Amino acid sequence: MAKAQPLFRVHRTQLLPALDATFEAVDKKAKNPNLGNIFLLPDADMLTVRATDLDIEIETTCELLDCGDEAQAFTVKGADLRDIVRNLPESAEIEFLPGAYNGQIRIRSGKSSFSIFSLPASDFPSMATELRGSTFEIAMPDVTAAFSKVAHAVQTKDIGRPFMMGIHMHPMQDERLGFAALDGIGLAAVQIRTERLLDFPGIIIPLKTAQVIRRLFDEVKEPATIEVADNLIRIRCNGVSLLSKLIEGKFPEHYLTAAPSDYEREIFVTVASLKAAVARVCLVASETDKDGIKLTLERDTMRVELTSKEGESAIDYVPIQYEGETGFSIGLNNEALRGILNTVDTQDVIVRFGGSLPNAVFLPSVGAAELYVISPMMARGAEG
Amino acid sequence: MAKAQPLFRVHRTQLLPALDATFEAVDKKAKNPNLGNIFLLPDADMLTVRATDLDIEIETTCELLDCGDEAQAFTVKGADLRDIVRNLPESAEIEFLPGAYNGQIRIRSGKSSFSIFSLPASDFPSMATELRGSTFEIAMPDVTAAFSKVAHAVQTKDIGRPFMMGIHMHPMQDERLGFAALDGIGLAAVQIRTERLLDFPGIIIPLKTAQVIRRLFDEVKEPATIEVADNLIRIRCNGVSLLSKLIEGKFPEHYLTAAPSDYEREIFVTVASLKAAVARVCLVASETDKDGIKLTLERDTMRVELTSKEGESAIDYVPIQYEGETGFSIGLNNEALRGILNTVDTQDVIVRFGGSLPNAVFLPSVGAAELYVISPMMARGAEG
Repeated sequence: MAKAQPLFRVHRTQLLPALDATFEAVDKKAKNPNLGNIFLLPDADMLTVRATDLDIEIETTCELLDCGDEAQAFTVKGADLRDIVRNLPESAEIEFLPGAYNGQIRIRSGKSSFSIFSLPASDFPSMATELRGSTFEIAMPDVTAAFSKVAHAVQTKDIGRPFMMGIHMHPMQDERLGFAALDGIGLAAVQIRTERLLDFPGIIIPLKTAQVIRRLFDEVKEPATIEVADNLIRIRCNGVSLLSKLIEGKFPEHYLTAAPSDYEREIFVTVASLKAAVARVCLVASETDKDGIKLTLERDTMRVELTSKEGESAIDYVPIQYEGETGFSIGLNNEALRGILNTVDTQDVIVRFGGSLPNAVFLPSVGAAELYVISPMMARGAEG
Repeated sequence: MAKAQPLFRVHRTQLLPALDATFEAVDKKAKNPNLGNIFLLPDADMLTVRATDLDIEIETTCELLDCGDEAQAFTVKGADLRDIVRNLPESAEIEFLPGAYNGQIRIRSGKSSFSIFSLPASDFPSMATELRGSTFEIAMPDVTAAFSKVAHAVQTKDIGRPFMMGIHMHPMQDERLGFAALDGIGLAAVQIRTERLLDFPGIIIPLKTAQVIRRLFDEVKEPATIEVADNLIRIRCNGVSLLSKLIEGKFPEHYLTAAPSDYEREIFVTVASLKAAVARVCLVASETDKDGIKLTLERDTMRVELTSKEGESAIDYVPIQYEGETGFSIGLNNEALRGILNTVDTQDVIVRFGGSLPNAVFLPSVGAAELYVISPMMARGAEG
């Protein structure tokens, strides 16, 4: 076989982070092989790396060691390429060559060589388009922290309410950015401060996109540039560009009214002790997402109980600070309650009951502009 | 409700290890609820704890804090009881009481209480029987180490050869105990020294039983008493008694002839480097359990290659010590090869090829009385 000219050479420390970032947009179960592939475009001293599942598209670049004159773009299976590059030694220089057969690419490094299938770059789809919308800069760690606080309230089942299946992000008055999610049982809402007043129409970011954004930009200090158009969002940060579809639909504008200010009862409780009690009574739950937990306010203590559909039951007690009358009971969906207790990061939490709405409202005991609401349900009581 | 008298009280540090041990024999997907249950028999200051899935039965005891006069045996769902006890604080004293309803048991500790279903002890099956066979004592860590070295060669699919689905254990001359497993492609054989000559007919221990034995007795220093009868084995060790069915069938007696002594080629290779090369070429494998790896002996180096059914390929090279002629090739099942490389715990391994059988034989480079055999297959060659 004639000695093939390399298409390009690249150092593993350059290529692997680029593959890891774009791999987030690779469709791992793609029926259309293009969507499972990663696009590689060598050009002079840079390699453009891109992937898309047609909901999200991620593009980044990395430096090449050198590039052949006839190097052209091609695509290869993302999972295979990433596995191969990962398994090479950290200091590896990696050579990409034309394959022995048409439709193959050869990858060579040290004593290792691989021949894998490739597809022509011209078959590779792209979501990229000119966005005509608002652009602003923001610190990503604040945004990803807000995402992680409201994610538990996103509806993950398709119940015919698309607006519930993502995270609502909208500018607020007085230089704040609001985040909210709701699933029909619970609501989570968080606000962060921004450097200046933002102005764009509220959007709904699909949960999957929010998760990818968290993984890509969680710890990136440099500010991101965000462009928001009607049905697309683009985030450019740290050399990575992410483009995602948005969820069409209208998020209820006055969602904060779910937490009425005319509440009737307020308790203070330690998050860890309530979490432990809930975990224990859930041991007898038969439907982990539906069984209700009954909370009953007593003198300095709250009774936590769960009775399964089959009739097994558990009761626990947690100390509370509470001034009002005893005997008040409320039933809360156990999954929603656990979601909140796993999210609140203060030591104590304030819980408010009743008022113009029968909801339970959870607020961190200090600082953070966040609140969580659960609308009550009928919960089976346990044997005393 | 009248205040019920406790059936018994037990400290968590006593009960949890007993539940953990017997839980190994609980049928986690039991259709017959008894097989998912754990049997509890309080008697004076001791609690007997037992479980069985009718293939394995495990019984142990733990100390009680106190025991009511009317305490009787009962059974409760193993997974639930273990979860409840695990979730209580480490220092918990746990009270078992009659349930509010018939067919329930109440468990109370501190501020937590649980009501769960119980079944009458009389419904609980037992495999226990008088064994009439050989009895001997042995150090369990040696036995479990041998199990873990041959386990990879056990056939896990039912291919109509029951003797392949377990670990053969048989006394050998000169105070050794032999262990072997084979799956039709590979064979693993290990021998350990015993204090005296043992005498029992060779048996085949089901893989699942061997795994349970490893988890129960892996680090137990006191010697175990093993009783072997026709179709049952009982191991008593560390206060735990395990009874298991054996696999009926005949393990090939002369299995060691699969490693012929008239081999034609012998190489030395570092386990880690061969393992890394095999892992890399397996990245293009399409059928992880079937694709063959082709090994070719060259001057001071061995070529390792894999070509998938679809035509993707990978080649790697590892340094070897080898004196013979170059060009010899052999195809080996990649799963069998990886199984051996994950098991051998010496730095280097000796591999022998050819002779009166075309098998590849792997031997640790120092010490250990163990050997591994793979019978060759046709392996697709890669493009050079």
